[in-house]
Amino acid sequence: MQDIYIHGGAMTPFGRHTGVLAPELAQQAILQALDDAGLRPADIQAIYCANVLGGMILGQLIVRDLGFGGIPVYNVENACASGATGVHLARHALLAGQYDTVLVFGIEQLTALGGGTIPMQRNDHKTDLYAKAGMVLPAVYAMRGTRFLHERGASRADLAEVAVKNRHNGSLNPFAQQRTATTVEEVLASRMIADPLTLLQCCPSQVDGAAALVVGTKRPARHRPVKVLASVVVSGLREQADDDILDAEITARAARQAYEQAGLGPEDVDVVELHDAFTIAELLYYEALGLAPHGEAVGLLKSGATRLGGRVPVNPSGGLLAKGHPLGATGVAQMVEILWHLQERAGARQVANARVGLTQCTGGGIAGVDHAASSVHLLGV
Amino acid sequence: MQDIYIHGGAMTPFGRHTGVLAPELAQQAILQALDDAGLRPADIQAIYCANVLGGMILGQLIVRDLGFGGIPVYNVENACASGATGVHLARHALLAGQYDTVLVFGIEQLTALGGGTIPMQRNDHKTDLYAKAGMVLPAVYAMRGTRFLHERGASRADLAEVAVKNRHNGSLNPFAQQRTATTVEEVLASRMIADPLTLLQCCPSQVDGAAALVVGTKRPARHRPVKVLASVVVSGLREQADDDILDAEITARAARQAYEQAGLGPEDVDVVELHDAFTIAELLYYEALGLAPHGEAVGLLKSGATRLGGRVPVNPSGGLLAKGHPLGATGVAQMVEILWHLQERAGARQVANARVGLTQCTGGGIAGVDHAASSVHLLGV
Repeated sequence: MQDIYIHGGAMTPFGRHTGVLAPELAQQAILQALDDAGLRPADIQAIYCANVLGGMILGQLIVRDLGFGGIPVYNVENACASGATGVHLARHALLAGQYDTVLVFGIEQLTALGGGTIPMQRNDHKTDLYAKAGMVLPAVYAMRGTRFLHERGASRADLAEVAVKNRHNGSLNPFAQQRTATTVEEVLASRMIADPLTLLQCCPSQVDGAAALVVGTKRPARHRPVKVLASVVVSGLREQADDDILDAEITARAARQAYEQAGLGPEDVDVVELHDAFTIAELLYYEALGLAPHGEAVGLLKSGATRLGGRVPVNPSGGLLAKGHPLGATGVAQMVEILWHLQERAGARQVANARVGLTQCTGGGIAGVDHAASSVHLLGV
Repeated sequence: MQDIYIHGGAMTPFGRHTGVLAPELAQQAILQALDDAGLRPADIQAIYCANVLGGMILGQLIVRDLGFGGIPVYNVENACASGATGVHLARHALLAGQYDTVLVFGIEQLTALGGGTIPMQRNDHKTDLYAKAGMVLPAVYAMRGTRFLHERGASRADLAEVAVKNRHNGSLNPFAQQRTATTVEEVLASRMIADPLTLLQCCPSQVDGAAALVVGTKRPARHRPVKVLASVVVSGLREQADDDILDAEITARAARQAYEQAGLGPEDVDVVELHDAFTIAELLYYEALGLAPHGEAVGLLKSGATRLGGRVPVNPSGGLLAKGHPLGATGVAQMVEILWHLQERAGARQVANARVGLTQCTGGGIAGVDHAASSVHLLGV
């Protein structure tokens, strides 16, 4: 099959960009990604804009003054998996021979909307009553956390350890919104959001950010060539299995398909950026992604394998917990982070000798939005 | 190149569906399209949902109870070109060999939002001031209309003739929202919206509707096989050229690319569904699509060639003027209409012996949304 390469990538720092309009934020990431790829706008043949809440025909607005000419712009939305879906659709077109070089970017300015959970509650869906009754995302993950503590004999400190690990990584990452390392005690003492999840166990949703990738079929000359080894998007009724809220079924399915597509297994993965919107999510995804056997998530965490310097560092960027989660940008930024690790340009948080990286985003799947999308990508050198 | 076939199509009647939720409306079209194709949900490998204003992860919500399983759902937005963009992206994946049978549907429930132009004014774009100052779509097209009357020596009655033609066609179409034929006198006497455009020269925007197509690589057995001969999406700063608001440049560019892709010319087209959001638009698109030479739009209209029974009937469905314009649904519904004509099942409005049909949607491109998308498709037997 045709090789698909990542030619360059960039992201803005995630954080409160209140003096900047969303299009300008995206433009920064786009121009930097082009520069990183050593390409000009005229080299790009199509553009995929990933965004959740920004409104009509946003991609065209963002690129209109950047000199791209009249190439197609596709606006893509798939909740938290929007950015990854953009890359996935770009890959289809590249495999079909429609283009040889395309741009994918993700953008979200949640601070302009009052934060991430508020506009989601405004959706005119028939299931909206759940959200109005309080089933917003922290509540949904809190129920999983409670079940996890009960079933697995895990402690609140085990959950907090995820935040400690990722916030340590975030302290090394100039692109993260929250760059303060923390301790288990601080995490547990922070304000309760939805028991057992305290404030420092929830990703910031008052955050803006953009990320961009140039993807194509030509072997890049500028940096160490990184290929898209697998690209999977699936959907489902919700994030968890019907009979077990600890089984992140849709994510496990996406991961199985991705490993099969690449001819690799979890043991081949050297670095992971996964969707730790809440601490409990990271533990559930360890198992869904095959990084730990069923029931062994806490054991994997405690072994230190997923820390920087461990066997398979997870969320060296700080993850959503430290970086913040500007919805459309997140999936693209995860791949930019992996790109940097595979090319040995991840700075203080560099994972040594990484050859294969995995990204995962899973969106929707809550009671108030009772249907989900999940995406898993494998990148490799 | 791999042939891409349309296996089946359906649409709901366009109109006020106030007792029905948007997902239910879309489900009707989806299930009817599957039935038309003789396929079950399990035969579908991916789903493309075209929608402009419906909110997050809408496609997954709509299909969740229909038995599709966990296949990917891609939510696509490209203003008025959303539905056509859905078909375009589906074709990429089919050409890439990722799937052999996919579903594309479009849905919009504008009545739940107060009508089409209101939510558009809510976009948090920096150009929003234009819309707030009155540059909503009727005003933009009115300026083109005024310029057209001045430059072309056309009369108000010429503009009105477009409405008379399309509303006659709509009177034959059970799927149209407004099914009353009219006269030039009635059109000109109807309420002035934005001079020279009277009410009957504007498409209804208080309208709901859905349309669905099954598209794939296998040669269909059930109906006369219809192929996608060309599929083009382009973008640009605005709908018109910088120095001539009567030059629908972006649409002309999409059309040129489509004819080249199919190896056909305007003279090969037997039936057209084009984006007559306002009467003036149809005249401008005659020239942009190459149906008439520059300056000859009114001549083409007056010759009767674009009427039912003429050489190349345009908008046999009644067009947006009679059908209404539920944004995401429109582009898909245009292709369903052409499908029916090519398969001789268009009822009282059937275009005889049609072998090649063209659809065109162009969205954005107004002052308040100063960037545009245009899509042209050619379908043929």
